[in-house]
Amino acid sequence: MPTRKKIVTIGGGTGRFALLQGLKKYPVDLSAIVTMSDDGGSTGRLMDEFGVLPPGDLRQCLVALSSAPQVMRKLMNYRFDKGELKGHNFGNIFLSTLELVTGSLDKALDLAGSILNIKGRVLPVTLDKIKLVAELKNGKVIEGEDALGDYQLVSRFGIKKIYLKPKGHPNPKALQAIKEADMIIVGPGDLYTSLIPNFLVSGISSAFIKSRAKKVYVVNLMNKNGHTDDFEVSDYVRVLEDVVGKKKAFDTVVYNTKNPSTALLRKYADEGEPVLRRKGANGQKMVGANLLASHLVKKAKGDVLQRALIRHDPQKLAAVLMRLSK
Amino acid sequence: MPTRKKIVTIGGGTGRFALLQGLKKYPVDLSAIVTMSDDGGSTGRLMDEFGVLPPGDLRQCLVALSSAPQVMRKLMNYRFDKGELKGHNFGNIFLSTLELVTGSLDKALDLAGSILNIKGRVLPVTLDKIKLVAELKNGKVIEGEDALGDYQLVSRFGIKKIYLKPKGHPNPKALQAIKEADMIIVGPGDLYTSLIPNFLVSGISSAFIKSRAKKVYVVNLMNKNGHTDDFEVSDYVRVLEDVVGKKKAFDTVVYNTKNPSTALLRKYADEGEPVLRRKGANGQKMVGANLLASHLVKKAKGDVLQRALIRHDPQKLAAVLMRLSK
Repeated sequence: MPTRKKIVTIGGGTGRFALLQGLKKYPVDLSAIVTMSDDGGSTGRLMDEFGVLPPGDLRQCLVALSSAPQVMRKLMNYRFDKGELKGHNFGNIFLSTLELVTGSLDKALDLAGSILNIKGRVLPVTLDKIKLVAELKNGKVIEGEDALGDYQLVSRFGIKKIYLKPKGHPNPKALQAIKEADMIIVGPGDLYTSLIPNFLVSGISSAFIKSRAKKVYVVNLMNKNGHTDDFEVSDYVRVLEDVVGKKKAFDTVVYNTKNPSTALLRKYADEGEPVLRRKGANGQKMVGANLLASHLVKKAKGDVLQRALIRHDPQKLAAVLMRLSK
Repeated sequence: MPTRKKIVTIGGGTGRFALLQGLKKYPVDLSAIVTMSDDGGSTGRLMDEFGVLPPGDLRQCLVALSSAPQVMRKLMNYRFDKGELKGHNFGNIFLSTLELVTGSLDKALDLAGSILNIKGRVLPVTLDKIKLVAELKNGKVIEGEDALGDYQLVSRFGIKKIYLKPKGHPNPKALQAIKEADMIIVGPGDLYTSLIPNFLVSGISSAFIKSRAKKVYVVNLMNKNGHTDDFEVSDYVRVLEDVVGKKKAFDTVVYNTKNPSTALLRKYADEGEPVLRRKGANGQKMVGANLLASHLVKKAKGDVLQRALIRHDPQKLAAVLMRLSK
């Protein structure tokens, strides 16, 4: 039996959910590294009240990697719509309580992974309590990932400095996964709130640079208004490589070539425009492909994939990446 | 291989928890029938907000019958002590959310039973929404199990009538278990709020009377001040047989003969006095034994067994009952 390829993903949101769903069907050894700077919504409330680490992004990865019956995945994503629990997500409460009971997020994830029968591992990038801080060029300081995500003038003023407070120690399991990986896939995910915070944790960028893995950046389908307006493919790579601290840190860039329908784009206009590729490569191999999910799904409560109108197709995305892994 | 004895338990609280913990170590086919009139605390809040059936007593039976690792049992019993979730019990939220996701308490219990690797089955006595109502002889009407449990003048005025509103259809699985049982153990459990409400559900008393099972009443260790003051063993049996509608409905009565220490009795004085046996049998076989847990356990958050100072010993209780089952 050939050794299974070790694939590490670093990303967030609906895009990474699709990526993990696609990759888990292949015979690979999957690790999902998760930013720990989330502080909004149900996650933020649980952190404030119980002093736990942020469960929301971890839960999404657990669900994406789960082979448990559909009902268990529905349970984990169930969002309460009334009463005292309103806005909370059952899976977040579940993970936080497991952390309180076991006294460690690491143990909580082991147990949750076994209950949900996950394929692969979900690894917090750090087990320290950290906060994302962005200093804009006009002097404004934005504290917290949630606040930064909501701030609409990031691109107008530009980010002078982005950092974690405190910097956070890297999770040894995440470092190890990066070191041993055959391929590291960064993205899809929100540039400032899902991708960059991982590389700001002490030791992660240097481990990434040192790793002999093939390094692939999967660029988002859409720009984010107020954050990455008018970014094209090469801008995403450039900004992230600046944070990582090495030009050509990525070998390969994967981007979408298929335009969403005009009707969809109109609905999405308040959120952003498609990411285009205008310039040539910056030394990376450029892989353009149709990565767009072609069928619309009815919105279902709490299902992260179905929250996005324009989204990656898990199968198309995974197929492109698996070809690159050879 | 000989067929395994089918044992049905009907009870509640710490006493039944001890009983199930003791019985699950024997090679028997166990069913725990659970009253559905609980409406207090965390359970009542979940019922009010989400329209679910009461999860609390079901959860306790699931935990008692679980062979899952200790951490899973701790998780199910975890009680939040601050914030919006204060007073809620994780296991209650878990069961209620499973009921919301699956649309049925029956399916929720199947799933929870499999996650918790339970030995036996936990069967709600009814799947209808019911309320326990007690009418006292002075005309006062007390609505709700929680209110009745807290009312301190029940024994002073006496109960004229106790009933469910509505009466509730019996859970077919509970009826079937009663019908096929080799032994039905009623108690331990609070007389008015844990035992009687089961027999008030339409069809349960007649199924109990018709069943060819050996019928054993396990009398509580302690009377409950304000409810069963000065009751002796035969009073418990008489009051319950009145509700069931048949004299000598029970074949055998099991009661404790060992007095708790004076120190413990002093601490417990506000709650009640030991149940004594003064009179002879009412046609039943009387089995007295030392059923008392002899070692004190440190109180641990949320552990139902450890909430009671004076409690049954799971091994002693199960041993007496297993001898009777032969």
